[in-house]
Amino acid sequence: MPTDSRADLLFPAEPGQRSLARRLYAVAAQLPIISPHGHVDPAILAEDRPFPDPAQLIIVPDHYLTRMLLSQGVPPADLGVPTLDGSPVETDGRRIWRRFADHWHLFRATPSRLWLEQTFREVFGVTTPLSPATADTVYDEVAARLAEPEFRPRALFERFNIEVLATTESPLDDLGWHAKLAADGWGGPGGRVVTTFRPDNVVDMEFDGWAGNLDRLGEVTGTDTGTYAGFLAALRQRREAFIAAGATSSDHGHPTARTLDLDPAEAARLYDRGRRGLADPADAEAFRAHMLVEFARMSIEDGLVMQLHPGAVRNHNRWLYARHGRDVGGDVPQATEYPHALAPLLDAYGNDPRLRLVLYTLDEYTFSRELAPLAGGYAAVYLGAPWWFLDSPEVLRRFRESVTESAGFYNTAGFVDDTRAFCSIPVRHDVARRVDAAYLARLVTEHRLTEDEAADTIADLAYRLPKRVFKFGRPA
Amino acid sequence: MPTDSRADLLFPAEPGQRSLARRLYAVAAQLPIISPHGHVDPAILAEDRPFPDPAQLIIVPDHYLTRMLLSQGVPPADLGVPTLDGSPVETDGRRIWRRFADHWHLFRATPSRLWLEQTFREVFGVTTPLSPATADTVYDEVAARLAEPEFRPRALFERFNIEVLATTESPLDDLGWHAKLAADGWGGPGGRVVTTFRPDNVVDMEFDGWAGNLDRLGEVTGTDTGTYAGFLAALRQRREAFIAAGATSSDHGHPTARTLDLDPAEAARLYDRGRRGLADPADAEAFRAHMLVEFARMSIEDGLVMQLHPGAVRNHNRWLYARHGRDVGGDVPQATEYPHALAPLLDAYGNDPRLRLVLYTLDEYTFSRELAPLAGGYAAVYLGAPWWFLDSPEVLRRFRESVTESAGFYNTAGFVDDTRAFCSIPVRHDVARRVDAAYLARLVTEHRLTEDEAADTIADLAYRLPKRVFKFGRPA
Amino acid sequence: MPTDSRADLLFPAEPGQRSLARRLYAVAAQLPIISPHGHVDPAILAEDRPFPDPAQLIIVPDHYLTRMLLSQGVPPADLGVPTLDGSPVETDGRRIWRRFADHWHLFRATPSRLWLEQTFREVFGVTTPLSPATADTVYDEVAARLAEPEFRPRALFERFNIEVLATTESPLDDLGWHAKLAADGWGGPGGRVVTTFRPDNVVDMEFDGWAGNLDRLGEVTGTDTGTYAGFLAALRQRREAFIAAGATSSDHGHPTARTLDLDPAEAARLYDRGRRGLADPADAEAFRAHMLVEFARMSIEDGLVMQLHPGAVRNHNRWLYARHGRDVGGDVPQATEYPHALAPLLDAYGNDPRLRLVLYTLDEYTFSRELAPLAGGYAAVYLGAPWWFLDSPEVLRRFRESVTESAGFYNTAGFVDDTRAFCSIPVRHDVARRVDAAYLARLVTEHRLTEDEAADTIADLAYRLPKRVFKFGRPA
Repeated sequence: MPTDSRADLLFPAEPGQRSLARRLYAVAAQLPIISPHGHVDPAILAEDRPFPDPAQLIIVPDHYLTRMLLSQGVPPADLGVPTLDGSPVETDGRRIWRRFADHWHLFRATPSRLWLEQTFREVFGVTTPLSPATADTVYDEVAARLAEPEFRPRALFERFNIEVLATTESPLDDLGWHAKLAADGWGGPGGRVVTTFRPDNVVDMEFDGWAGNLDRLGEVTGTDTGTYAGFLAALRQRREAFIAAGATSSDHGHPTARTLDLDPAEAARLYDRGRRGLADPADAEAFRAHMLVEFARMSIEDGLVMQLHPGAVRNHNRWLYARHGRDVGGDVPQATEYPHALAPLLDAYGNDPRLRLVLYTLDEYTFSRELAPLAGGYAAVYLGAPWWFLDSPEVLRRFRESVTESAGFYNTAGFVDDTRAFCSIPVRHDVARRVDAAYLARLVTEHRLTEDEAADTIADLAYRLPKRVFKFGRPA
Repeated sequence: MPTDSRADLLFPAEPGQRSLARRLYAVAAQLPIISPHGHVDPAILAEDRPFPDPAQLIIVPDHYLTRMLLSQGVPPADLGVPTLDGSPVETDGRRIWRRFADHWHLFRATPSRLWLEQTFREVFGVTTPLSPATADTVYDEVAARLAEPEFRPRALFERFNIEVLATTESPLDDLGWHAKLAADGWGGPGGRVVTTFRPDNVVDMEFDGWAGNLDRLGEVTGTDTGTYAGFLAALRQRREAFIAAGATSSDHGHPTARTLDLDPAEAARLYDRGRRGLADPADAEAFRAHMLVEFARMSIEDGLVMQLHPGAVRNHNRWLYARHGRDVGGDVPQATEYPHALAPLLDAYGNDPRLRLVLYTLDEYTFSRELAPLAGGYAAVYLGAPWWFLDSPEVLRRFRESVTESAGFYNTAGFVDDTRAFCSIPVRHDVARRVDAAYLARLVTEHRLTEDEAADTIADLAYRLPKRVFKFGRPA
Repeated sequence: MPTDSRADLLFPAEPGQRSLARRLYAVAAQLPIISPHGHVDPAILAEDRPFPDPAQLIIVPDHYLTRMLLSQGVPPADLGVPTLDGSPVETDGRRIWRRFADHWHLFRATPSRLWLEQTFREVFGVTTPLSPATADTVYDEVAARLAEPEFRPRALFERFNIEVLATTESPLDDLGWHAKLAADGWGGPGGRVVTTFRPDNVVDMEFDGWAGNLDRLGEVTGTDTGTYAGFLAALRQRREAFIAAGATSSDHGHPTARTLDLDPAEAARLYDRGRRGLADPADAEAFRAHMLVEFARMSIEDGLVMQLHPGAVRNHNRWLYARHGRDVGGDVPQATEYPHALAPLLDAYGNDPRLRLVLYTLDEYTFSRELAPLAGGYAAVYLGAPWWFLDSPEVLRRFRESVTESAGFYNTAGFVDDTRAFCSIPVRHDVARRVDAAYLARLVTEHRLTEDEAADTIADLAYRLPKRVFKFGRPA
C-alpha cells in the first residue's frame, strides 16, 4: 500500500487497474467544479463573512449527521438542532463537537465520514484523525483556520476552483443576495453564483402555509394570485426575475413523478378548490402533476432546464418533525415509478429539442428498468446524479454500472453535490470523480474502452457535460 | 496488459482470475451456438442472397442504435428509419453511416458498441476503429466484404458454428421460408433453422388489427374463428404446423405476467366481447392471462416449450410510434410482478413434468426476490437470459450473481440473443460466454467451485443446457 | 493459489486485499457464536441424544435441498419428506443420500453447497468431496462420526463455541425442553440455550387452526381468550413465561410489514369477528397489523426485542402444500413495502429508547431505498441480516454494500443463522464472517477505513453487536 492514502482513495486494489484509475482521475482532478444544484445559502458568498464555530458550521445543519446520532438514541437537541417551540438546545459548540466525536465510529463506511475526513484534511489541513480523544484538538485546529482570511467563503470558492455554483431559492425569495453578488461581479447571468427556481412552496397545496405563500407571491409580483391565470402569470414573472439573476434551471421536489396535462379549465378548478381550502390529497397530487407539464411548457418558452426530484416521504419521522420541523433528517425515500407517471409530460414534449428534463431518484431500483431506458429513448430526458441517500461511493458506482449500458454517458447530467455544506463541495465532487475514474479504469482493463476514450469521457463527466446540460457559460 | 486486447475482453484484471477466465472461456468458445430465441428473418437464410449495404444491414433496423441517437436529438428519419405515412427519409447508406459514426461516442460502454466493434473485427475482419474520421473506410471495407460469397448468409451461418437457430413467426405466417429451408435440408424438425410459435397478434385484443388477424387465422386454418372453440382449434392446428416446421417452443410477449384459469364459458364470453369490439382493457388483460394457461395446457399436449416475455410498455414514445410505428425503439420496461401473477398457471401445472416454462424479464429487480425462488421451487420453471435492456455484460453478470444462489445454474435456460441482426449472433453469444467465464473464474478463485466443475458448468451453460431445455436435437 | 483452499474461502483474489481479509477474518474467527434467531429443536440439546442417520439429519428436513430437487423434477417423497396423508415416502437413508448425491451439481454456487461442503469437512472431518460416485463413502463417514460421543449435540455445542443459541417457540409451547435445559444448567435467563416468543399461530387469523390455538392458549394460561382483553392478558402471561425461560426477543412472521394502531374497541371488534369465523382477509391483515403495535407496547413494558420477518407468500406451491404441508419449500418472497407500512408503529414508538425493532427482509430491493434510511433515522430500528433466500455470500455482500452507507454498521444487528440444521450453525456464521472480512478488506484497501477500525468493526459485527442488540449476557 502507498504511504499517502489520499492518492488512492476509492481506487480498486488491482495494481494495473489502480494505476489506470490514477491517470484518469488526474485528468478530472484539475478541472473546475460545476455545481448545478445545491442548497448553499447565497448570503454566505454575498456577505463573505468568516464562518461560525466548527460545530455550527459542520454538525448542527447537517441532517446526515444528526439523524445518524438520533438512530443511536442521541436527541438532535443535544447536537444543537433548534426546536420549533424554542425550548433550549445545546449551544456550546465544543460540547456538541465532543458529543459528535464520541459517536464517530457510527459513520464508518458512510459518505459523511469520507466527506468530513477529507474536508478536515484537504480544506482545513487538519491531519489529526477525529476520535473521542482528539475531539478538542480537531475542533481547535478547524476553529483556528476559520478565523483566517484565507478561509472566508469567497477565498475558499477560488481555492475550490468552482466555476459556477447554483443555489436554490423559492419564488418568494427577493433574490437580494444574488443582486449583491451580481453587483460584486460574482452573480447574474453567466456569473459564478447563480440561483435556481424552486416553486414547491407555491405549487404544492400540501406544503405548510401554501395559501399564505400564494398571497405573498401575489404581493411580490403585483399579480392577482386569486385566479389560476394570475398564478401562472406570477410564476412566469418570477422565472424571468430568476433568469435575470442567472438561473438556468428550475427544480421540482415532488412526492411522486406523476405528471398530468389537464385542460386549463380543469387546472383552474383544482386551483380554486385549493384556494378555498377544499382540496383533498388527490387534488393536490393532480395539481402538482399538472404543474409539471405547465412548467415544461414554460421551460420551452424561457429555456430553463427542468430538474425533477421525486420520491421523498417528507417528515416521516413525526416525533422529529413535531420538535424540530422540516429538513432535519426526518424524510425517507419511497418506491418511485417513472414510465407511467411521466407519460403525459413525455407524450407532450419528450422529444422536443427545446425541453431538457433532468430526472433524479431516491430509488436506485429504477436505474436499469426505468431511468436508463427513458433517458436513452427521449431527446428531452437526462439523468441526474444519484441523490441524497444515494450520493455515496457505492451507489455512484452502481449508477454507472446500471444506467450506462442503456443510456450511455451522454444522457447523464454530471455530478451534483446537492449540499448546503459549502466547505464539503470540493470533496464531494472529488469522490464522484474518483468513482468515475475507478469505473472507467475497469472498462479499460476489460477492453471495453481505450484509455484515450476513458480520459475524454471523464473530462466530459466532470466538466463539459454538466456545463452543457445546465446551459452554463456565456448567457444566451 | 496483453497486446491482443480481444483475448481478454470482459475478463477481470487480477492475473490469477484472468487466466482462469481464459481457460474457462476456451472451453465454451469452441462449442456450437444454440440460438433458441431471436428475430432473424428466415428469408435471409432461405434466399441466401448477399446482404444489402452496411447501413441498411447494421443501422437502419437496429432500434438500440436509432433510439440512442434520438435521445440526443437525431430524428430516426435521418438514419433511414421508414415512416408510416411514407414521408421521405434518408436513403443514402453512406450518409446514414457517417451520421451514425459522428455519434459513435454515445455508445461508449454500451453493449451495442461492444457488439458492433466485435462484429466489424471478428465477422468482417475490419480492424480500423470506427470514428467520424474513419466512417468511410469502415463503410467501404464492410461493403467490400458483403459483396464476397463467403459473406452470404449460409456461409456465415457455417462460419458462425450455429447448430440451430430459431426464428419467430406469428400463426398468420404461412411458414413458406421455413418450407424452403426444409426443402434445402436446412429446416424442419431437428433442422438447423426452425421457427417459434408467437401468437400475440391473435391473442392480444389490444394488438393493432386483432379482429382482422382473427379473420385471417380463420382463413389460414379453414376454421371458424367466430367462436372461442374455433379459435382454440385454429391455434392447435397452427401449433401442429409450426411443429412440422421444426418449432420446439412458443413465445408470448405480454405487458404483464398475469395468468388466469377461467372456466371455458367465461373465456368464451370474453372472446365474444372482444370480437364484438366491446372489450375494455381489463377484458383484454384477463383474456391474455387466461390464454397463457390455455397455452400451458396445449404445451402439455404437444410438447412445445413455453416462453414468456412480460413487462414491456409498448410504444411508450408516442411521437415515435405515430411517425415510425412499432418496434423502432419506443418501448420501455415497467415493473413486473411474478409470484402472484403466475399463481394460477403454477397452481395448475407448475409441477407438471410435461410443462416447461421459460421466464424472461425486463425488470432485474425481480432476480433474487421472485424469479430465482420460482425457478428453484417449481419443476416447470426455467429462467431465460437477461433480455433486451438487460442483455449487457453488467446485467449478465448481475443475473448470475443474483439468481444462482437460489436457483442454481440448472434452472436457467442458457443465453438467447433475441436479435434480428444475424451478423451479430456470434458476438452476442461470445459476450455471454465471456461473462460466464469471468463469473465462474471468481467462484473458483474464491474456492466455491473447483476448476473442473466450472469447466463442466460453462459447457452446460453455453451448449448442453439450452439444447436440452429447448428440446433441440433429433425430433422426438 | 494456496494449497489449503479453506483458508481463503470467499476472499477476494487480489493478493493485498486477500491478505487483509485473512487478518480481519482471524479476528472474528476466534470469537464465540451468538445465535439470536433460529429454529433448532430445543429437544436436541435437552435430550443430547445421538443424531439420526445422515439423510434424516441433513437432507429430509432441509427444504433448501428438497425444493431444489423438486425444481428438477425429483418429488420430495423420494427424499423422505413425510406426506400429510401418510402415503409412503422413501425411508431408506442411504437411498435418499444417493439420490441427493446424484443431483449434487444442482447446488453449484449455492449457499447450500457451501454449507454442506464445509459441514462435512469442518464438523465431520470428511474430506472426500461428495459426488454420485462417493455418496456411500461420505454417508458412511458421516454416519460413523454421528455414532461417536463427541458428536452428541452438547459436545458439538461446546466445540462450535456457541455462547448463546435462541430457539423459537409458539405461545402454546409448554417450554418443557427449556425447563430441562435450565435444570441442566444450560438454559434460563442468561443461559446458553434460550427461547424466542413467536406468536404467529395465535395472532394470524389466517393461520391453520387459529381458533383452536386460541382455545389452547386459554387453557395454557387459564385465561378466557374469548375476549380480546383476555387474549392480550394471555399473551402477556406467556411472554413472562418465555422471559423466565431466557427469552430476550419476540419474533413475528407476517405476510407484510403493515402496522396499525387501532383503538382498543376497534381491535376488540376485529378479534370478535375472527373468533366468530367472520373475518375476511382485510380483517386478518388489519388485526395482524394492529397486533404489531400491541406487541411493541408490550416490548416497551417487558423489554423483549421485537423481530419482524415480513414478506413470505406462504404455501405458494399448492401442490407441495397439499401433499407435504407447511415449511417444506413451498414459500416464495414477495415485494415488501416498509416506510408506509411501518409508519403507525414508528409514529407511536419509533424514537422510544425502550423499543428495539429488528427488521428482516426477503426483498433486497428495499436495502438502500427503505431499510437503511429507516434504520439510520429511527432510534428503535435495527436491520437484521439478509434472510432466507438472501442468506448467501453474494447477498450478504450486497447487504453491506447497500445499507452501510446510510445506516452504518451500528444499526445492523449481526448475523442470524435462522436454521434448524444445528450442525450447520458454525459454518453459516463462518460464511458471514468471511463475507464481512472481504467487504471490510476492500474498504481498507480503498482507504475508507484503517485496518484497526476494520478489525474493531468485524469484532463488533461478529460478536459484540448481536450480543448487545439482543440483550444477551447477564439477566437484567
